[in-house]
Amino acid sequence: MASVERRRIVRLRDGALDAGPDQLAIEEPLEIEVDGTVVSTTMRTPGHDIELALGWLVSEGALGSLDEVLEAKECFEHAEGADEEQVRRIVQVHTRSSIPLTPRLHATSSACGVCGADLIDLTQRTRHWSLSGDRTAFDIDRILGQPRALRESQRGFDASGGLHAAALFTTGGELLCVREDVGRHNAVDKVIGWALTEGRLPLAGLALQVSGRASAELVHKAVMAGAPLLAAVSAASTLAVDLARASDLTLVGFVRDDSLNVYAGGERLGVTE
Amino acid sequence: MASVERRRIVRLRDGALDAGPDQLAIEEPLEIEVDGTVVSTTMRTPGHDIELALGWLVSEGALGSLDEVLEAKECFEHAEGADEEQVRRIVQVHTRSSIPLTPRLHATSSACGVCGADLIDLTQRTRHWSLSGDRTAFDIDRILGQPRALRESQRGFDASGGLHAAALFTTGGELLCVREDVGRHNAVDKVIGWALTEGRLPLAGLALQVSGRASAELVHKAVMAGAPLLAAVSAASTLAVDLARASDLTLVGFVRDDSLNVYAGGERLGVTE
Repeated sequence: MASVERRRIVRLRDGALDAGPDQLAIEEPLEIEVDGTVVSTTMRTPGHDIELALGWLVSEGALGSLDEVLEAKECFEHAEGADEEQVRRIVQVHTRSSIPLTPRLHATSSACGVCGADLIDLTQRTRHWSLSGDRTAFDIDRILGQPRALRESQRGFDASGGLHAAALFTTGGELLCVREDVGRHNAVDKVIGWALTEGRLPLAGLALQVSGRASAELVHKAVMAGAPLLAAVSAASTLAVDLARASDLTLVGFVRDDSLNVYAGGERLGVTE
Repeated sequence: MASVERRRIVRLRDGALDAGPDQLAIEEPLEIEVDGTVVSTTMRTPGHDIELALGWLVSEGALGSLDEVLEAKECFEHAEGADEEQVRRIVQVHTRSSIPLTPRLHATSSACGVCGADLIDLTQRTRHWSLSGDRTAFDIDRILGQPRALRESQRGFDASGGLHAAALFTTGGELLCVREDVGRHNAVDKVIGWALTEGRLPLAGLALQVSGRASAELVHKAVMAGAPLLAAVSAASTLAVDLARASDLTLVGFVRDDSLNVYAGGERLGVTE
């Protein structure tokens, strides 16, 4: 399925205006339905939609293995009276027993609002696997090489300049899976969904590399999938770092050719203060 | 209120590891409550929280002016047993009459999923102002200068490298308001909330500039606030372009010092194919 699509635009270059076709990242809504109830609508780039739905369910703590899934299928219909390319899409998941699914951020109940500590508690309570016993040793030089390897496999980004990506790497530097999406969170969910369908959860011994920044949401997803290391090309937020430390996740950011920041879990990199 | 906070990290630079303090963008949850019901939880950077809540309500089509707002206040409490810096936060909005608030993406009902056309229809149905009569003329050279002016006012980004920003510019190039946040959508909502409290909605005659990419969500927010032009530093998605064209919004992207792409509404820039 294509991740980019043509639109006719006008470019200003070197003081001159020029009209012509351009390749844009596709953004379209997808609904995720579990046992007959729509549980999420996400704006995503088409492709690997079932992986996206299943990975999202892992991230939400609702799925830990394929055993619980009876069926996952794509449903679509052409929208009436609209452009012929407009297709409504939904992924329907049927589970063996009704799986628990409470919107994560609303699962806390407090007198007045929520704080970062509430979210950190929630991640610890809902995760299927603990990272505290994971002794994977990662080589810093291999981590430094991941963004370049990721970038070289981003075909949709090459065309559009508008897609994020996530990938899984072994400690030996092998790229196992790469997914692109307009949303960073979707790219990560697609990778996690791929791992679920391949029987590779938890992601023990693997590094999860993302193209953008590391938010608390991405750290949460890495923890829920059991990945011992999350590497981001850009900055990490305070809550991302606090959640990584509380979850025994190794978190690195600003990963460039010869530099990086270690925010949490340095022992897996042989880094101690 | 601070937008960045210190964490002790380990840096790898020039082959050497060095431990020390770093400034990170703060990410914390905020709940938005309207007339006693929590309607949204967003991961945001603290500061201008009331503007964020009010701007979000404008974006959702629930508010068009301050007349409907009886009170908007911040409520907070220190989380028990947690780090003393952990504060639970909520913005409570009380309205004159119960305002309509249906989660935007779920407001469509369809046999099977939603598509981009559904979202475009929804924006047209819920907006308070039409842009079709807005004849504001923007000067391309001034638009080209906006990212630099925005960048120079991003104090949180200077410190952390981890914050997005949104700003309003006049056609004369004056920067009226700039807001930073870990989330692009929050930065835009804060700017819109500022405009609401200043009695400047709709944003007629103004350009909304954002630091990152232009998603359909950001185009939707610009349309809901009545801004005739949205400028992004990076790429626009297909749905962002389609929604801008359907809404008579001028959309430009990849705005650099001497180049940009015009995706929609070129007539306000004097650009015709």
